[in-house]
Amino acid sequence: MDARTVNIVLVGVGNLGRRFTQLLADKAAHLKTRYSLDLRLVGVADSRGVASDPAGLDLETIVRIKTDEGSVGEYPNVGKLQATAVELVREVEANLLCEASPVNLQAGGEPGLSCVRTALAKGMHVVTPNKGPIVLAYRELVDLAASHGVKLRFDGTVAGGLPALYLGMRDLRGATIERIEAVPNVVTGFILDQLAEGASWEDALARAQESGHLEADPSWDLDGWDATAKLAILANAVLDYPARLEDVSREGITGISPEKVKREAARDQLIRLLAVAERAEDGNYSLRVRPEALPKTHPLGHLGSHKIGVVYTTDIYGTITAIIDEPTPLPSAATMLRDILDIYATQ
Amino acid sequence: MDARTVNIVLVGVGNLGRRFTQLLADKAAHLKTRYSLDLRLVGVADSRGVASDPAGLDLETIVRIKTDEGSVGEYPNVGKLQATAVELVREVEANLLCEASPVNLQAGGEPGLSCVRTALAKGMHVVTPNKGPIVLAYRELVDLAASHGVKLRFDGTVAGGLPALYLGMRDLRGATIERIEAVPNVVTGFILDQLAEGASWEDALARAQESGHLEADPSWDLDGWDATAKLAILANAVLDYPARLEDVSREGITGISPEKVKREAARDQLIRLLAVAERAEDGNYSLRVRPEALPKTHPLGHLGSHKIGVVYTTDIYGTITAIIDEPTPLPSAATMLRDILDIYATQ
Repeated sequence: MDARTVNIVLVGVGNLGRRFTQLLADKAAHLKTRYSLDLRLVGVADSRGVASDPAGLDLETIVRIKTDEGSVGEYPNVGKLQATAVELVREVEANLLCEASPVNLQAGGEPGLSCVRTALAKGMHVVTPNKGPIVLAYRELVDLAASHGVKLRFDGTVAGGLPALYLGMRDLRGATIERIEAVPNVVTGFILDQLAEGASWEDALARAQESGHLEADPSWDLDGWDATAKLAILANAVLDYPARLEDVSREGITGISPEKVKREAARDQLIRLLAVAERAEDGNYSLRVRPEALPKTHPLGHLGSHKIGVVYTTDIYGTITAIIDEPTPLPSAATMLRDILDIYATQ
Repeated sequence: MDARTVNIVLVGVGNLGRRFTQLLADKAAHLKTRYSLDLRLVGVADSRGVASDPAGLDLETIVRIKTDEGSVGEYPNVGKLQATAVELVREVEANLLCEASPVNLQAGGEPGLSCVRTALAKGMHVVTPNKGPIVLAYRELVDLAASHGVKLRFDGTVAGGLPALYLGMRDLRGATIERIEAVPNVVTGFILDQLAEGASWEDALARAQESGHLEADPSWDLDGWDATAKLAILANAVLDYPARLEDVSREGITGISPEKVKREAARDQLIRLLAVAERAEDGNYSLRVRPEALPKTHPLGHLGSHKIGVVYTTDIYGTITAIIDEPTPLPSAATMLRDILDIYATQ
C-alpha cells in the first residue's frame, strides 16, 4: 500500500519541538511500515524565524541548527529570519499543525493561540502539548475545530507523556467521575523529595535548576500555576466542566516549611502538589491545587521523583490509576506523535 | 437531537451479563442526554433459553429472573426454553452482540465463538469480555470484522475493568514496546496475600471461595490459565504478535509453599502471579506466566488484594503503569458499555 503523506507545520523548536523533530526522523521507517504514513515536515518556526519547503525539510538539519542554538530562519536557502510563526501557518499548505511553543499565559497564550486558531480556521488538524491555548480558549477551539471538520488533540498538556486525557475522555465514557486526583508536575515533587531528605530550600532549588526541571520562571511551577492549568484542562476535557484558571483554589509549594515536609516524610507520608477535582451533590466540581501529605495507601503514595500520575474515581469503572516514569522529556514530546496517530492511524 | 437507537443482543446473563443489564437500565437517561444513544436490548440468551422482542425487552424483568436463578427462557410471553444462543443471534435483527457467556476453552470456546462468528458475518458489531473466542481465534475474528465493515471490541478480556487494551493498542501507537508486565488475575493475588499473612493453603482457598472470587474450576485461575489467556490476548492485540496459549511458558501458584511466600513477604516483597512479554533483539517476544516476588520499588509492588495492573515499558513513551481497584465485578461488566461507546459515541 502506498504511504499517505501528511504535511506538517511545526511551531516551536525548543525542548519538546526539537525532540519531536528527531522522533520524526527516528520513526519514519516504522511509521511507513506499520501505519502507511509518511509524516513530512513542510514548515517550521521558532521565535526568531521560519523555514518552509513543500518537498519537505531535512529533519537532521533542523535538529543540528537548534542544538547549536541557532534559529530555523538560518536553514539553508529556505530559511527566513524575522518572519513569524503565524505568517508561516497562514501561508504554508499543510494538513496539520504541531504547536509546541512555550506556554505563555501572561501574553494571552500567544503566539500559540493565534497559530492554533489560524490553522483550525484553514482546515488543518492541530496537535499541541501547549497548555496556553487550551486553558485560555478550550470551548472556542473545540467548536472551531468541529465547525471546520478537523481535529484538535492536546494529550501532552496535562500529564507529560501519560495519556491521562485519552484515558479520561474515552475510556471513562458512560461513567460519572466522582473525583480526579493528579500529581501532574515533576519539579515540585523533585523539590519536595529534596526537602524531605533534609535539603534546605536553597539547595533544593539549586538542584532542581541543575537537573533542568525548573522553568525560566520558577513561579510557574512553584506557585502551582502549571498544576492549576492542567487541572483546568482536565476539568474541561474530561469532566465537561467549563473551568477557568480562576475557578481553581490554588496554593503552591513556595514557602512550605522544610521541617514540616521532613516531619510528614518521617511519618511515612509523601508530600506532593496535588490537583483535585471533586464532584458535589449538585453535579458541580470543586477544584483545588495544594501540597498534600499522601499516605502510602494512596494510589499515588509511592510516586518517585520523576513520576507523575492521575487517579480517576468513578461510579462504574472502579478507581483507575495511571502513572508514568518519565526520566527525560521524550515522552512529553512523543505525545505529538500519539496525537497524530490518533488522527491518522486506521489501526 | 433525536437519540440513535442501538439494538443489542446479549448472550450470557451470569455475573457479568446480569450486571451489564442492570447498567443499561441505570445509565439509560445519562446515555441519552450525553451521547444521544438509546441502547435497546432486543434479544437475550442464557444456557437454558432465550427471549427476544424487537420493541425492546424489559431490563428489570431480566435482572429479576436471573437474580431468582431462573432462565430468560421464562420471560413472559416472548421467552423460549431450549432455544440456543446461536439461533437467537442468527434470527434476531440487531446492530450489536454483547457476548458475555463464560469462558470455555475446553469446548473450543463454545458457545461464545459461534455466536461471535455468526454476528460478525451478519454485519453486527461485537463487544465481549469473553477470552475464549479471542484467544482461540483472534486473527480470524479481526479479519472477519474488517471484511464485514464492523467492529470487534474486547476490552474486558485482559484486565477486568482496566482499559489495558485501549491503552496499549491506541495510546502506545508509534512505540516499540520493550516489555509488558501484568498482574491480570485477582484471585491468585488474594490467595497469595492470605498465605503471606500466615494462612494455610486450605484456609486461603476456603476464603477465596467464600469471597466469590474463585471460579467453579479453580484450576483455571490457580494453574495460571486465566493469566496465560490474558497474556496471549495482550500479545496479539497490543504487540501484534500472533501468540497462542501454548506459546506462553506457564507456571501457576498451585503447590507454592506458604513458607516461601511468608519469607518473601517478610523481606518486603509482594508475591504475584506475573504475566510477562519481553522483546528480544530479533523483535520476537518471549511470554511467561509465573509467581514472582516484586520488590516495593516495582510499579506493581504495592498492589492490594483487589487490584490488578499492567506496566508497559516503551522506547518513546517512558514506562506507563495502570492499576484498577475493582472491589466488585461491576467494572468488568461495564467494559461492555465502554466498548459500545467506543463504537458509537461521537464525542
